[in-house]
Amino acid sequence: MGRVTARRRVLRIREGTSSYRPDTLAAEEPMEIRVGGRPLTVTMRTPGDDFDLAAGFLVGEGVVHAAHEVTAVRYCAGATADGGNTYNVVDVALAPGVAAPDASLERNFYTTSACGLCGKASLDAVRTTAAWSVAGDPLRVGPELLSALPDRLRAAQKVFDSTGGLHAAGLFSGDGELLCLREDVGRHNAVDKVVGHALRSGLVPLRGTVLMVSGRASFELVQKAVMAGIPLLAAVSAPSSLAVDLAAESGLTLVGFLRGTSMNVYTGTERLSPQQVA
Amino acid sequence: MGRVTARRRVLRIREGTSSYRPDTLAAEEPMEIRVGGRPLTVTMRTPGDDFDLAAGFLVGEGVVHAAHEVTAVRYCAGATADGGNTYNVVDVALAPGVAAPDASLERNFYTTSACGLCGKASLDAVRTTAAWSVAGDPLRVGPELLSALPDRLRAAQKVFDSTGGLHAAGLFSGDGELLCLREDVGRHNAVDKVVGHALRSGLVPLRGTVLMVSGRASFELVQKAVMAGIPLLAAVSAPSSLAVDLAAESGLTLVGFLRGTSMNVYTGTERLSPQQVA
Repeated sequence: MGRVTARRRVLRIREGTSSYRPDTLAAEEPMEIRVGGRPLTVTMRTPGDDFDLAAGFLVGEGVVHAAHEVTAVRYCAGATADGGNTYNVVDVALAPGVAAPDASLERNFYTTSACGLCGKASLDAVRTTAAWSVAGDPLRVGPELLSALPDRLRAAQKVFDSTGGLHAAGLFSGDGELLCLREDVGRHNAVDKVVGHALRSGLVPLRGTVLMVSGRASFELVQKAVMAGIPLLAAVSAPSSLAVDLAAESGLTLVGFLRGTSMNVYTGTERLSPQQVA
Repeated sequence: MGRVTARRRVLRIREGTSSYRPDTLAAEEPMEIRVGGRPLTVTMRTPGDDFDLAAGFLVGEGVVHAAHEVTAVRYCAGATADGGNTYNVVDVALAPGVAAPDASLERNFYTTSACGLCGKASLDAVRTTAAWSVAGDPLRVGPELLSALPDRLRAAQKVFDSTGGLHAAGLFSGDGELLCLREDVGRHNAVDKVVGHALRSGLVPLRGTVLMVSGRASFELVQKAVMAGIPLLAAVSAPSSLAVDLAAESGLTLVGFLRGTSMNVYTGTERLSPQQVA
């Protein structure tokens, strides 16, 4: 796991003085995801938990929904000139009867080949591929529980402390226990790694859980939460309009600007315990 | 341009009290980029400056290098059921003799179909597609000039102030004048919009300029700077290992953690005026 960080020499300038010193950086490498040997996508990621990343990506795309639908995940080896393995190409074998994704589809959005592409079509694509609904999830949490999550996430972030350069995604139980934390240069990758780990542990759909992410809440992060069956997504920063729209349509509770005792609840306010909300 | 932001109702919780109020969000919509009528990619972006986004994306991919190589950019219309236009599909017409991108290539990384995919292959892909080098660019700047850029960028960010949800990219002249600012829910899109605006203004390659971005510096952002001929990229947060490697190989000056009078110079330190650096 030495590849998670890398050391480089840096000229450090502080208030007019400068000096050369070693610096620790978050590692970034391309990773190609293949399904049944066919290339599907390439993502720039921090090496580590690569099999979880591949599995979680396929959950987000609606390709797999349970651990038994993935029969094997492996690194492709022996194809470089010297017969080596870069550990940057991962092949996923699906169980018989599980439909492989169409590699010509660009991340769910090519559901229409007409010029009608729009936010509504993106929402429709998620609705038609989701295998379950988070709308009826009985999860209830108080604001004080949510307020405690950012500090717990940050306290568990090991690589961020040394590099300052990683996004984090943390999966919490309904009573605030940290179940899984992943860090990555790509925010989507951090979520895919969490979801993939859960899938391979037999825990998808992740009913009754809370997903907390550093940074912003985009459409794609809401999509990944919905596809994994997670009923509440909380973010440190702002959501986008389409993230709120998808959360509203899906019945997901979306919390933004979660800082200290402050937060904005954009959708699914019924999950905030009524005694806590005036 | 009303689509740049959207209004939604939000439950705002502050120190135990809560109230419903309207909130302004950064708009997010999918946009498909076509070249000569053929779909190339879909990106989730904040509507606005869409033609610049398409043109800038193609600069980053090494498809176009000068304004005359793009003969037209237009929205596809009339393909929805009601004959309307979603303004989310943009088609770029290339001049005769300009090779269209291979839609089967996934953002430069599919240069090898073997399992040898690695960071080195990603660096090679940029080197082989770049039409010019930033290595010899004579730009020289002092640390005090760079220190002033984050405040100038933030002061010019209009939408961020109302939503807190946008990435910014600012292009500055060598003496610190802001030439172009763009905001987007996607950090890559903000850079593409800046570069596309410059291309369509006949300013690419952008010799002697400085690109400043909110957030982190990834491999892809360094790639976009190099492909646009920008010799210095400065970021508020951390770079990744592969970003530093590509900057070093390309002769680009990469500055990270640019905050107040502090910064880290990862590569190309010769561009920091010698009298300013002990």
